[in-house]
Amino acid sequence: MSDIVTEFNEYRQRMNDKILADNNKVIKRIFNLDTNAFAEGALDVKTKELLGLVASMVLRCDDCVKYHLETCYKEGIPKAQVVETLSIANLIGGTIVIPHLRKAYEFWDALEANN
Amino acid sequence: MSDIVTEFNEYRQRMNDKILADNNKVIKRIFNLDTNAFAEGALDVKTKELLGLVASMVLRCDDCVKYHLETCYKEGIPKAQVVETLSIANLIGGTIVIPHLRKAYEFWDALEANN
Amino acid sequence: MSDIVTEFNEYRQRMNDKILADNNKVIKRIFNLDTNAFAEGALDVKTKELLGLVASMVLRCDDCVKYHLETCYKEGIPKAQVVETLSIANLIGGTIVIPHLRKAYEFWDALEANN
Amino acid sequence: MSDIVTEFNEYRQRMNDKILADNNKVIKRIFNLDTNAFAEGALDVKTKELLGLVASMVLRCDDCVKYHLETCYKEGIPKAQVVETLSIANLIGGTIVIPHLRKAYEFWDALEANN
Amino acid sequence: MSDIVTEFNEYRQRMNDKILADNNKVIKRIFNLDTNAFAEGALDVKTKELLGLVASMVLRCDDCVKYHLETCYKEGIPKAQVVETLSIANLIGGTIVIPHLRKAYEFWDALEANN
Amino acid sequence: MSDIVTEFNEYRQRMNDKILADNNKVIKRIFNLDTNAFAEGALDVKTKELLGLVASMVLRCDDCVKYHLETCYKEGIPKAQVVETLSIANLIGGTIVIPHLRKAYEFWDALEANN
Repeated sequence: MSDIVTEFNEYRQRMNDKILADNNKVIKRIFNLDTNAFAEGALDVKTKELLGLVASMVLRCDDCVKYHLETCYKEGIPKAQVVETLSIANLIGGTIVIPHLRKAYEFWDALEANN
Repeated sequence: MSDIVTEFNEYRQRMNDKILADNNKVIKRIFNLDTNAFAEGALDVKTKELLGLVASMVLRCDDCVKYHLETCYKEGIPKAQVVETLSIANLIGGTIVIPHLRKAYEFWDALEANN
Repeated sequence: MSDIVTEFNEYRQRMNDKILADNNKVIKRIFNLDTNAFAEGALDVKTKELLGLVASMVLRCDDCVKYHLETCYKEGIPKAQVVETLSIANLIGGTIVIPHLRKAYEFWDALEANN
Repeated sequence: MSDIVTEFNEYRQRMNDKILADNNKVIKRIFNLDTNAFAEGALDVKTKELLGLVASMVLRCDDCVKYHLETCYKEGIPKAQVVETLSIANLIGGTIVIPHLRKAYEFWDALEANN
Repeated sequence: MSDIVTEFNEYRQRMNDKILADNNKVIKRIFNLDTNAFAEGALDVKTKELLGLVASMVLRCDDCVKYHLETCYKEGIPKAQVVETLSIANLIGGTIVIPHLRKAYEFWDALEANN
Repeated sequence: MSDIVTEFNEYRQRMNDKILADNNKVIKRIFNLDTNAFAEGALDVKTKELLGLVASMVLRCDDCVKYHLETCYKEGIPKAQVVETLSIANLIGGTIVIPHLRKAYEFWDALEANN
């Protein structure tokens, strides 16, 4: 059975593999930094994921939002905290953010349905 | 019969209902403000819809453009005025706006075909 | 006596002259198109200036906002219409637009003080 | 004695007063929502301020960054947490964010020097 | 046989024809300028295509990226040069650019598969 | 004697020192990647600088534009090539780019005047 979560993850993984196989040093290091930046430090992992989510939302990047929503979900962040994060994005980024809010809700529902 | 106008509106309505059912105060008020901001005031409704259209276009938000195109259409704004608005968006926003211009023309055609 | 309106216009004129003196065909034509796009057509000049203003605002370009505010002022567009245009920009673009709203109010005051 | 913190706050207050005195309903409500959105809810005030900071940073809004830096400072958020938030903004937003990182560091120093 | 390259080009051509048939002077001239700006001048065509590619990438416009990737491919620009251009976009634009990097790799593969 | 080039470089250096002294691993690596990405590879240094310039321009980052203009100048890239790069940015990014074009011309003049 296919769904938007599986579809997103499979495409993401397949293309990331292709990109990294190309061995461009700058791109590879940026990918590595991504792991680093969201690891526990002065801030815990959950807070960092919410930071990643709100930044992706105001920059209106659906795939980035999906990625952070899934990590939030896996980290067990309550939906109420995710929604407050989205509401801050909506206020800061304006109504232009609403179409991405719709997709975020749809993806969160799919995450819950899958589990 | 399905088409891009119906598809857009059904998805939009379904997801808006889901978002508003969540009862987040900030998000609900932003949705309410949207109705307020485009109501007649010092400027008439038609002018406000064109303002919404040009802003959506330069911010390159296809769903926002579709929404304002449909309202423009329902308000009876002539295509010539819509196109001039799009041309200003194209000049201010540059050629990066052109892919969204293509989708705008496609949606306007669908609006005309539906009626 | 110097003020922010005069300062803006003098810098703008001096640099535009320098840019156009360079005779780059693409740049010169874009500058010419600017005059064209805001001339009366299916839409009147006032509506077009408000379109330019809202687009500049959501794209958060202070100098572009100043330019369109001055033209709005010269065209005799009432402040109430300018403010409604700014409010639509604020809603669509979010609170990130507020710092540019502050500068817009400051510039409009200077336009009124100068006359 | 004048400094960049005082200067920022005085200009911000003076212009906000002017904007709100104009009584535009949409703008006033957006200003009110701002207070609401950052109040304690499912997330605490500190986390919300960091969300506001990272969003302002990737959207490259210096004045918004200053505002959230000051609130972070007043809330007693440790510099190490602020810097990790800035580092996530830098990674997500790219090197284009660096000039705003410089101004953020300058403003944080001024906040510390003032106290 | 259909593929993402053919599909992209057919949609692009069909909609461009529709847009240009409308005879809006501003839009037509912007389309013409596009041809002009990428013609050989002080810079050769290959360099200009890479400039178009990096600009499209940091502005996160998938269709613009596809267009410039195809022109790069037709101009015989080696993949290594295209990838270095994409890596600069990724660094300047940040991880928010990565989803568009995935689509760029997918489209380049389709260009190679088609030939 | 002070000028906009010296002023820009001194502020940039002073703040970079402060940022790097903070030893945040993610930020330090992004700064390091910047050096890497613009080193000769499949593309020569001059082409890469023009890529950096056009990307900075369409993203409307004045400080990034200044940085790349200065490197272009030091690399001996002819003004005609710089201007063609700026013209492509103006076309892709639209008239919203013009205020940054003005500052770019002003900075290039200062670079020439300083030498």
